[in-house]
Amino acid sequence: DFMRALDEVHPAFGVSEEELQQVIQNGIIHYDAVVDELLKTGQLFVEQVRSSSRTPLVSILLHGPPGSGKTALGASIAQASEFPFIKLISPDNMVGYSESQKVTAITKVFSDSYKSPLSVVVVDNIERLIDWTPMGARFSNAILQTLLVLFGRRPPKGRRLLIIATSSLRPILTDLGLSETFDSELRVPPISSLRAMEYVLHELQLFSSSQHRKEAIRMLEDAGFGGNDDLSPNLQIGIKKLLSIVEMARQEPDNVGQRLTSALMDLRGH
Amino acid sequence: DFMRALDEVHPAFGVSEEELQQVIQNGIIHYDAVVDELLKTGQLFVEQVRSSSRTPLVSILLHGPPGSGKTALGASIAQASEFPFIKLISPDNMVGYSESQKVTAITKVFSDSYKSPLSVVVVDNIERLIDWTPMGARFSNAILQTLLVLFGRRPPKGRRLLIIATSSLRPILTDLGLSETFDSELRVPPISSLRAMEYVLHELQLFSSSQHRKEAIRMLEDAGFGGNDDLSPNLQIGIKKLLSIVEMARQEPDNVGQRLTSALMDLRGH
Amino acid sequence: DFMRALDEVHPAFGVSEEELQQVIQNGIIHYDAVVDELLKTGQLFVEQVRSSSRTPLVSILLHGPPGSGKTALGASIAQASEFPFIKLISPDNMVGYSESQKVTAITKVFSDSYKSPLSVVVVDNIERLIDWTPMGARFSNAILQTLLVLFGRRPPKGRRLLIIATSSLRPILTDLGLSETFDSELRVPPISSLRAMEYVLHELQLFSSSQHRKEAIRMLEDAGFGGNDDLSPNLQIGIKKLLSIVEMARQEPDNVGQRLTSALMDLRGH
Amino acid sequence: DFMRALDEVHPAFGVSEEELQQVIQNGIIHYDAVVDELLKTGQLFVEQVRSSSRTPLVSILLHGPPGSGKTALGASIAQASEFPFIKLISPDNMVGYSESQKVTAITKVFSDSYKSPLSVVVVDNIERLIDWTPMGARFSNAILQTLLVLFGRRPPKGRRLLIIATSSLRPILTDLGLSETFDSELRVPPISSLRAMEYVLHELQLFSSSQHRKEAIRMLEDAGFGGNDDLSPNLQIGIKKLLSIVEMARQEPDNVGQRLTSALMDLRGH
Amino acid sequence: DFMRALDEVHPAFGVSEEELQQVIQNGIIHYDAVVDELLKTGQLFVEQVRSSSRTPLVSILLHGPPGSGKTALGASIAQASEFPFIKLISPDNMVGYSESQKVTAITKVFSDSYKSPLSVVVVDNIERLIDWTPMGARFSNAILQTLLVLFGRRPPKGRRLLIIATSSLRPILTDLGLSETFDSELRVPPISSLRAMEYVLHELQLFSSSQHRKEAIRMLEDAGFGGNDDLSPNLQIGIKKLLSIVEMARQEPDNVGQRLTSALMDLRGH
Amino acid sequence: DFMRALDEVHPAFGVSEEELQQVIQNGIIHYDAVVDELLKTGQLFVEQVRSSSRTPLVSILLHGPPGSGKTALGASIAQASEFPFIKLISPDNMVGYSESQKVTAITKVFSDSYKSPLSVVVVDNIERLIDWTPMGARFSNAILQTLLVLFGRRPPKGRRLLIIATSSLRPILTDLGLSETFDSELRVPPISSLRAMEYVLHELQLFSSSQHRKEAIRMLEDAGFGGNDDLSPNLQIGIKKLLSIVEMARQEPDNVGQRLTSALMDLRGH
Ligand SMILES: Nc1ncnc2c1ncn2[C@@H]1O[C@H](COP(=O)(O)OP(=O)(O)OP(=O)(O)O)[C@@H](O)[C@H]1O
Ligand SMILES: Nc1ncnc2c1ncn2[C@@H]1O[C@H](COP(=O)(O)OP(=O)(O)OP(=O)(O)O)[C@@H](O)[C@H]1O
Ligand SMILES: Nc1ncnc2c1ncn2[C@@H]1O[C@H](COP(=O)(O)OP(=O)(O)OP(=O)(O)O)[C@@H](O)[C@H]1O
Ligand SMILES: Nc1ncnc2c1ncn2[C@@H]1O[C@H](COP(=O)(O)OP(=O)(O)OP(=O)(O)O)[C@@H](O)[C@H]1O
Ligand SMILES: Nc1ncnc2c1ncn2[C@@H]1O[C@H](COP(=O)(O)OP(=O)(O)OP(=O)(O)O)[C@@H](O)[C@H]1O
Ligand SMILES: Nc1ncnc2c1ncn2[C@@H]1O[C@H](COP(=O)(O)OP(=O)(O)OP(=O)(O)O)[C@@H](O)[C@H]1O
Ligand SMILES: [Mg+2]
Ligand SMILES: [Mg+2]
Ligand SMILES: [Mg+2]
Ligand SMILES: [Mg+2]
Ligand SMILES: [Mg+2]
Ligand SMILES: [Mg+2]
Repeated sequence: DFMRALDEVHPAFGVSEEELQQVIQNGIIHYDAVVDELLKTGQLFVEQVRSSSRTPLVSILLHGPPGSGKTALGASIAQASEFPFIKLISPDNMVGYSESQKVTAITKVFSDSYKSPLSVVVVDNIERLIDWTPMGARFSNAILQTLLVLFGRRPPKGRRLLIIATSSLRPILTDLGLSETFDSELRVPPISSLRAMEYVLHELQLFSSSQHRKEAIRMLEDAGFGGNDDLSPNLQIGIKKLLSIVEMARQEPDNVGQRLTSALMDLRGH
Repeated sequence: DFMRALDEVHPAFGVSEEELQQVIQNGIIHYDAVVDELLKTGQLFVEQVRSSSRTPLVSILLHGPPGSGKTALGASIAQASEFPFIKLISPDNMVGYSESQKVTAITKVFSDSYKSPLSVVVVDNIERLIDWTPMGARFSNAILQTLLVLFGRRPPKGRRLLIIATSSLRPILTDLGLSETFDSELRVPPISSLRAMEYVLHELQLFSSSQHRKEAIRMLEDAGFGGNDDLSPNLQIGIKKLLSIVEMARQEPDNVGQRLTSALMDLRGH
Repeated sequence: DFMRALDEVHPAFGVSEEELQQVIQNGIIHYDAVVDELLKTGQLFVEQVRSSSRTPLVSILLHGPPGSGKTALGASIAQASEFPFIKLISPDNMVGYSESQKVTAITKVFSDSYKSPLSVVVVDNIERLIDWTPMGARFSNAILQTLLVLFGRRPPKGRRLLIIATSSLRPILTDLGLSETFDSELRVPPISSLRAMEYVLHELQLFSSSQHRKEAIRMLEDAGFGGNDDLSPNLQIGIKKLLSIVEMARQEPDNVGQRLTSALMDLRGH
Repeated sequence: DFMRALDEVHPAFGVSEEELQQVIQNGIIHYDAVVDELLKTGQLFVEQVRSSSRTPLVSILLHGPPGSGKTALGASIAQASEFPFIKLISPDNMVGYSESQKVTAITKVFSDSYKSPLSVVVVDNIERLIDWTPMGARFSNAILQTLLVLFGRRPPKGRRLLIIATSSLRPILTDLGLSETFDSELRVPPISSLRAMEYVLHELQLFSSSQHRKEAIRMLEDAGFGGNDDLSPNLQIGIKKLLSIVEMARQEPDNVGQRLTSALMDLRGH
Repeated sequence: DFMRALDEVHPAFGVSEEELQQVIQNGIIHYDAVVDELLKTGQLFVEQVRSSSRTPLVSILLHGPPGSGKTALGASIAQASEFPFIKLISPDNMVGYSESQKVTAITKVFSDSYKSPLSVVVVDNIERLIDWTPMGARFSNAILQTLLVLFGRRPPKGRRLLIIATSSLRPILTDLGLSETFDSELRVPPISSLRAMEYVLHELQLFSSSQHRKEAIRMLEDAGFGGNDDLSPNLQIGIKKLLSIVEMARQEPDNVGQRLTSALMDLRGH
Repeated sequence: DFMRALDEVHPAFGVSEEELQQVIQNGIIHYDAVVDELLKTGQLFVEQVRSSSRTPLVSILLHGPPGSGKTALGASIAQASEFPFIKLISPDNMVGYSESQKVTAITKVFSDSYKSPLSVVVVDNIERLIDWTPMGARFSNAILQTLLVLFGRRPPKGRRLLIIATSSLRPILTDLGLSETFDSELRVPPISSLRAMEYVLHELQLFSSSQHRKEAIRMLEDAGFGGNDDLSPNLQIGIKKLLSIVEMARQEPDNVGQRLTSALMDLRGH
């Protein structure tokens, strides 16, 4: 029934729209120029795959701190390609799989991709796919070797493939010999200016009035999270975490500024 | 018959009342303000899950020294939510399971939770779930990886989940990369003031007369366990251990003060 | 047929009289006050289990050097409880079992104990149960984890359980995190006074005449094994080894003193 | 069905033309004298196998940095031999195989080769075949041992075999004891002169006019990638990577020089 | 058919005469007083088992350098007991057994022994039984644990057992915790006096005339192997190796003295 | 079908002529006195086995640098014995075997040998048989233990066995405890005098005229490979490698001296 599960999760062809939707459920907020640049660079690679016959395989790595938006951006680039085959390989769909089941599932997506003239495969969260743990530097060598080969294996004649991988642990990928298999690496930074953060809070309609907003921002500045337009030296937060903090703060409408401030201070305390 | 055992232990839906009852058999004694604060904070997270659609997954960690009451408090918060699905994942129910049986059992609880609009899953005693042993830093990486993914996997559309985990080994969780998967961490402290301890002894009706009580307290003070209202520098004891010591002392009604004192000194001697 | 073997060795209910008898075959000799104290303390824990409903689980550890009499004393305490369920978990009954067979066998005894209102489980020789070897610090983590959970798992409502464990390697138990699972630890010391040893020799009727006895004792004193009533600085011998040396000495009736002396010197030489 | 897969992938006899074609899809560009020398030396070994009866087994290793063209050159030498049996053993064809399946597949190719009077076996990317990872120095000893024996095992009487192996990790091969099994080792260098690079760009018709070409070269020289005819000290790029960079640059025809320059600088930055 | 093999090799009851004969094929030469002492001490332990009911289990270890005659002496003591059950557990009979097959085979011999009122079990070459190798300190922990338990497990009521174990690696046994399981340890020394060696040569009728003998001895003395009656400082040779050297020397009757001398020098050179 | 393969490869009785022939395909060239000495010493051991009943088992080790001719010499000694049972245990015949299949195959050869009154077993390339790799000091302990026992196990009454083992890694064998199982060790040196090399070249008829020969030798002397009759300090080459170099040189008849010289210099360069 593992095979059946496999089938259910990965229809052999086409685009897994639902899965892609699930990972960009909260949309893409354009809080900074870097967001658009990343999307545009992604588009360029899509075009290269579409047009150049000498490079039927192109692979890129989106890396950055936890929660910086790597998965959502990778899925967005993939979705925008409108290629006939778009699949997401994610640890979320492989909970409880044995090592060899994972290898089989990963391999199947690539084999399937070879049946479409144009394909995108998003390989999400590499460290989790290979069962990486820093304690004792354990990981699944079988899965690592599978990725090492698949990331470098040219599709058969007439087929073209774009690989978009994501990871929060780029240094580890380098130690494992995975980094050099990518044609290009793109860094997804965390939010690090109060202006960008303010933009997000606004988009999420956190404040009932601009009065509330102003008070909250002043509180954040007082707590040391201010700075110039581009950089608030004490601010470092992934968009994913920010979304979570915003929802927590929303529980106590009268207390929003304080909740945000203390949440950010907790984060910095770590 | 492992599958049957699985079924028996984990009915697919609903609330495992009995299991929750079992871990708070001795009730919650309000010996300190921190107890109420913890219960209240827990309630806030319950509300966030109930009301915010942008954060369908919230996870918190209750950590503190052995016997400080983590499991009982976690179960109380869960029970108070009155969500239609409340389940306890505990090593107590997995004795003798193989690594893959544990992975299956854990995964099943989460899958089941996705079928309810609102769910709480209590993941008790993480270090024991992953078979952690300090000697040689051994543990089950398969179970760890399962938790790492499940703690971050968003429930399907329309479903919301609160995860309450407990552990006595927070530093290890950090080394294993588990800490950063939680939205929030709450510390459950041991009893560390003679006043709080006195409150517990009173609640448990250990003394037959106030005369007895006074004598016993004086004896404890003489042995160096006194202090101010908030802190007795030499006192550090989990509520669970205290319950055990009290029952031992109850065996020799004429000797209660002395039994308590020597038990506390043994503890400090370790 | 492993399951059959299991059944034969561990009848599901009742008391395994024969097994208990086997480990106290040579009786309990009261060579020192400590022997009676240990038996009495054991009895107190038996009473706590019998009477207190708040602590349905009590666990104690008997530890001391090899052959000091831990198993015999543990079995005696268990037997004296006259509880309806008394079982011995011993490596002697698990020779050739695989790791998972051991886990199953151990778990079964505890499950069975939960069916009796009052139970004692003697867990003998923990280091051997977990296949401990100092070289490379190897051991069965599966069995260790089973014990860690079982030693802390409360019996179901209305059931009460006393766990008596024995070990010669307390420091290792601490390193493995096992020590802190016990409610109390009791040390079983070796024989370390000539007076206690003399008492044993007398009980075993080693000497045909008091003349022989006196000569032998003088020989031991001359060899440096004398001392005051409570402590002979050069004497350190477990009751089990002493029994073995006595029987060897008995082979040469005319030579008893010399045999005893040289056996003790060999022991010290190690 | 692994066995069936095996059959499909490796027809027992003959030449796997298609596979060979696949790895030299972009042809051989004669950008440097060393390219011709390598091909010629390869031919000499082919002749030795064809003519000398005392050395029925000859093995050579093509080694050099990633992407320097080892696989394409090895396949070219093999193809040029026109021996009746030419096979490629490549990790690309063994994705998802277990260790023992890999051993079986590798062994089968050699056994098959013994049925032809003259054979070439290309063993591509040894480090990947043995599942090598630098972290923890893990690899498949079973596969390594298989190669160690097969690289030294004489074919049966009347059969002759040329082994062409490739690797990017010659030092590791030496540590593993593999180096000394080869009769000869040939180094495949990266492109390291601007002249050779210019030759490649020209062959690939990257520039629409010689004006464009001149501008791009000047830009590269300005960025420090110039040098004399034989060596540009700051230039080190495998032909495979160069092909990929060229195709990327081709996406922005007006910007070719800049794209090339920044790609080379990224590479040097690593 | 492993089970059948087991049966063939170890008839459940009785004495395996043939096996015992095989290991003392070359008899016992009384080249030194220590040989008789060892046999006599062995006999004393046999008597203890026969007569004392308080020590139904006695275990001894014969240890000494390789080839010093441990196995032959152990088998001789066992044979001389004339007990109704005498068995040899030897690695020679377990070639190719898996770890669990070895555990089963060893356990079976002990179980069988419990069916006889009086038994001897010779456990030969412990380091080989546990698959010990110094490189990486590898060994079978499963077999080690089996021995640790069996060496300490009392036979059932009315049964008595003598265990005679042999080993060339006593320090390793100590590190593994095996040493302390024996009631007594006896050292089997190598031949280390020229007189003892001469005695052996004479018994083996190596020399055709006393003239030859004298010449050979002189040659040995000239080469530095002389000494007083009890000790030749440069001589250290096990009886087993000496037997082998004698037979080699016998090939060249005219050259005996020289062959012996150079063999001994080779040995010392190591 | 592994069992069938086993049968095909190792007929239970008799002499595997073909296998022996295969490893001495290029004959034995008597380039040095040491070659004859080795063959003669081998013959002496053959005679000892044939004639002495006290040493029914004799084992020798041929060790020396890679390609020095160990296997060919071992096979020659075995063949010359004309014993009714002569078998070769070689890694070449066990490619793809699992660890336990290797143990079975090796054990079977020895069991078969016990059925013949006189037998020789050649155990070729021990390091490869035990899957030795220097990286991480990995090897098959199961196979090592099998060899340790088989090399010391006496054949049954009336059977006699000569074991000839070969290895290039004598120090490793010592670390593994294998060295001391051999009755004797014989070193097979590489060719290290120009005179011996010249003898080989002559035997192989490399030169078309003595003029050519003289020129080539002069060239070698000019390159520093000269010396006196017994030792050329810069020359160290196994006969096997020399055979390979000669055949390469033969490809360019006009260039022989130069090819030889540069091949030797490559070798020294390593
Ligand atoms: N500009 C943005 N870029 C990326 N994600 C955004 C952006 N704006 C909003 N989001 C939302 O933020 C969330 C980003 O989470 P996502 O899982 O992509 O982060 P991640 O870096 O992959 O996290 P992790 O390190 O845990 O894998 C998504 O819910 C997404 O819809
Ligand atoms: N204020 C309190 N908080 C928690 N538990 C309490 C409190 N008052 C009484 N108790 C009782 O104390 C016991 C606490 O034990 P619990 O198992 O919850 O501790 P724990 O910290 O989870 O222990 P462990 O570290 O062994 O997992 C329970 O029996 C509970 O009923
Ligand atoms: N006072 C005593 N206490 C314990 N055992 C006694 C006493 N007097 C006599 N004995 C006898 O001494 C022996 C003690 O052996 P026991 O196996 O209990 O020791 P142990 O400490 O468990 O040994 P080990 O460390 O090997 O497990 C038993 O045969 C018991 O009958
Ligand atoms: N002179 C050349 N030598 C080799 N390959 C060339 C040459 N000219 C063009 N090519 C092309 O360059 C590419 C070389 O890639 P190839 O896979 O052979 O490199 P590689 O060194 O094996 O890479 P890797 O280290 O990743 O295994 C092929 O597409 C080949 O057609
Ligand atoms: N006094 C003696 N003691 C022991 N063995 C003797 C004696 N005299 C002759 N022998 C013979 O010497 C040989 C001793 O070999 P044995 O196998 O017993 O030695 P070992 O110490 O067990 O060797 P290993 O260390 O290899 O196990 C036997 O063949 C035995 O018949
Ligand atoms: N005097 C000689 N001694 C040994 N081999 C010789 C001699 N003369 C010629 N030969 C030939 O040289 C070759 C020696 O190769 P062989 O495989 O025996 O070497 P080896 O030392 O076993 O190599 P390896 O270390 O690879 O196992 C054989 O082909 C053999 O026929
Ligand atoms: Mg992600
Ligand atoms: Mg708890
Ligand atoms: Mg005991
Ligand atoms: Mg390649
Ligand atoms: Mg022996
Ligand atoms: Mg060889």
